[in-house]
Amino acid sequence: MFYAVIPAGGSGTRLWPLSRAGHPKFLHALTGTPLSLLQATYGRLSDLATPETTFVVTGVAHAAAVARQLPGLPEGNILVEPTPRDSCAAIGLAAAVIARRDPHAVMGAFAADQLVRDVPAFTSVLRAAIRGAEDGLLMTIGITPTHPETGYGYLHVGEPTGSGDVCKVASFEEKPALPLAQAYVDSGEYLWNAGMFVWRVDVFLDELARQQPSLHDGLTRIAEVWDTPDREEILAQIWPDLTKISVDFGVMEGAGVAGLVGTVPGQFGWNDVGDFHTLGELLETDTAGNVVVNLDPSAPTGVIMQDAERVVVVPQSGRLVAVVGVNDLIVVDTPDALLVCPRSRAQDVKKLVDSLKERGSAELL
Amino acid sequence: MFYAVIPAGGSGTRLWPLSRAGHPKFLHALTGTPLSLLQATYGRLSDLATPETTFVVTGVAHAAAVARQLPGLPEGNILVEPTPRDSCAAIGLAAAVIARRDPHAVMGAFAADQLVRDVPAFTSVLRAAIRGAEDGLLMTIGITPTHPETGYGYLHVGEPTGSGDVCKVASFEEKPALPLAQAYVDSGEYLWNAGMFVWRVDVFLDELARQQPSLHDGLTRIAEVWDTPDREEILAQIWPDLTKISVDFGVMEGAGVAGLVGTVPGQFGWNDVGDFHTLGELLETDTAGNVVVNLDPSAPTGVIMQDAERVVVVPQSGRLVAVVGVNDLIVVDTPDALLVCPRSRAQDVKKLVDSLKERGSAELL
Repeated sequence: MFYAVIPAGGSGTRLWPLSRAGHPKFLHALTGTPLSLLQATYGRLSDLATPETTFVVTGVAHAAAVARQLPGLPEGNILVEPTPRDSCAAIGLAAAVIARRDPHAVMGAFAADQLVRDVPAFTSVLRAAIRGAEDGLLMTIGITPTHPETGYGYLHVGEPTGSGDVCKVASFEEKPALPLAQAYVDSGEYLWNAGMFVWRVDVFLDELARQQPSLHDGLTRIAEVWDTPDREEILAQIWPDLTKISVDFGVMEGAGVAGLVGTVPGQFGWNDVGDFHTLGELLETDTAGNVVVNLDPSAPTGVIMQDAERVVVVPQSGRLVAVVGVNDLIVVDTPDALLVCPRSRAQDVKKLVDSLKERGSAELL
Repeated sequence: MFYAVIPAGGSGTRLWPLSRAGHPKFLHALTGTPLSLLQATYGRLSDLATPETTFVVTGVAHAAAVARQLPGLPEGNILVEPTPRDSCAAIGLAAAVIARRDPHAVMGAFAADQLVRDVPAFTSVLRAAIRGAEDGLLMTIGITPTHPETGYGYLHVGEPTGSGDVCKVASFEEKPALPLAQAYVDSGEYLWNAGMFVWRVDVFLDELARQQPSLHDGLTRIAEVWDTPDREEILAQIWPDLTKISVDFGVMEGAGVAGLVGTVPGQFGWNDVGDFHTLGELLETDTAGNVVVNLDPSAPTGVIMQDAERVVVVPQSGRLVAVVGVNDLIVVDTPDALLVCPRSRAQDVKKLVDSLKERGSAELL
């Protein structure tokens, strides 16, 4: 019995103005199909998990949207966090709730806003990770790097465990500068840390108890009352004071030092759809390399491109978008905000959003 | 007594999607002030013409907008053409109507969609043109070229008449290719033909009768009944069959060959506001050369530019426009259409509009 946990959080800042706090990246159909990233994530896990063994952890603002996008998911499997307390609390809550039902269950955590092109290859890697988890390791799925990406953390791969493709993780490395990223890729010893974890809930909760005892105790207390009328009261009492830390920092790095972390390398067309440039590389282009990101295939998009090359247009306002004589540009047209930015500056959209926050334009975030 | 005639027609295709058939260029405040181009044109003529001696010739679609933008203009001085029959019919109608009131009046015709920066200099040149017109010449105001523009026609200047700055016009030249335009400018013998004409109505109507007799007869018949209850009936009967020709081709070129055309050179910061690149050159920029064309100074514009240079933004939809890391770009944001285009391609907006016509997108024109 495999449990799939999908933390559905984060606003996808670099996909502004498409992705907003109120309608974040994972709810959008950025998959080249009518499916949202959340729906695609849910779908690709259905080979190994059933709706009954799949959980989505999300915030109060998105619980309803998650429920509607995943009509087959049992209501009780949508775990709603009262406030965001980072990934260690979100994933830990799911682990604690699952452990009450099945103390030695193997669970995996998979962000709701990533894309996988080769689902059979993904499933095969996931099966290998599940075997490593059954052997007692906290498993990460590492992505074989295709380029020296500076936007991801890396896993330094250690000794093979002797069990299939599973190796120990020697260390977790922060997002590197370009020369170091290049050295990582050239060495062949590093994988991208995609934030996909697989473990036995008892092994994880033991490590959580060792490294984050107060977080462990709080989550355990919440899980005890999860299926009782006391849930809301206990949540309200305990949740706001839980330690706010990512699962990488809070558990995995320390577990790695303790020799408890394993990995299997994966090559299945993984992408975090982090920004509009990346999105343009994922989706189908015309002969000039232009991409029109049509999020509602039932609606005609009014886009005219003349002498345009490698332009990414996201037409989301219903207006005509006319692009003449430009290259390598991003044009995102939404009902209340327009972004024009070169593909080479796609990462800087985050800075733009920061400056919107500074000027108090909350309605646009 | 000087009569000012303002033909208010043309849709300003190269200013799409700001300028539309239903709300053309001359109605927009493209002047760097709250005044529309039409209002600025009317205002600059008020030194020499009174509201009673100023006429606007416009189409049925714009009569109401003209009336509202120029509340001081007597209703009877708005001459409404049933259908567009080009500038010879429009200006000829005004000439014929004025001639009924004042047979030897001097009138000038000034397009509603041009900009003049130095109004005292313009007035002084206009006074010189009026003197030439009183002497019996069909006067054009020529613009001293500042660069080898290929978008305008040129006047080849002939002999001085001995009266002030007035010279004969040796010939009218079509829009030249760049090498020829450069040769014109280098020679010092050519002026831009800005389509500003000054003449005695009797001299003009005589030339019209000589060169376009049926047009002359039709317009004379209409003018006879203009102030009677028969106006609409006669207009409906005669107007649709009037020769459709520009005043340049229909009268001025032939009059030039007959030695009847004079010119005075003008240097008064004239600009035809032909496209968004030109508009960007006219208006005030920030320190990075960026221009925000705010057509409604009472409304705040939501424009954010980061690392942008020489960008022209026309924010007309009320949405936030965020421009990051781009140079020399035009971004025109209207409620139903968005244009993104380099300043170097500003002329190609006309082609874009042509392709919209071809695909039958009439609602966007």
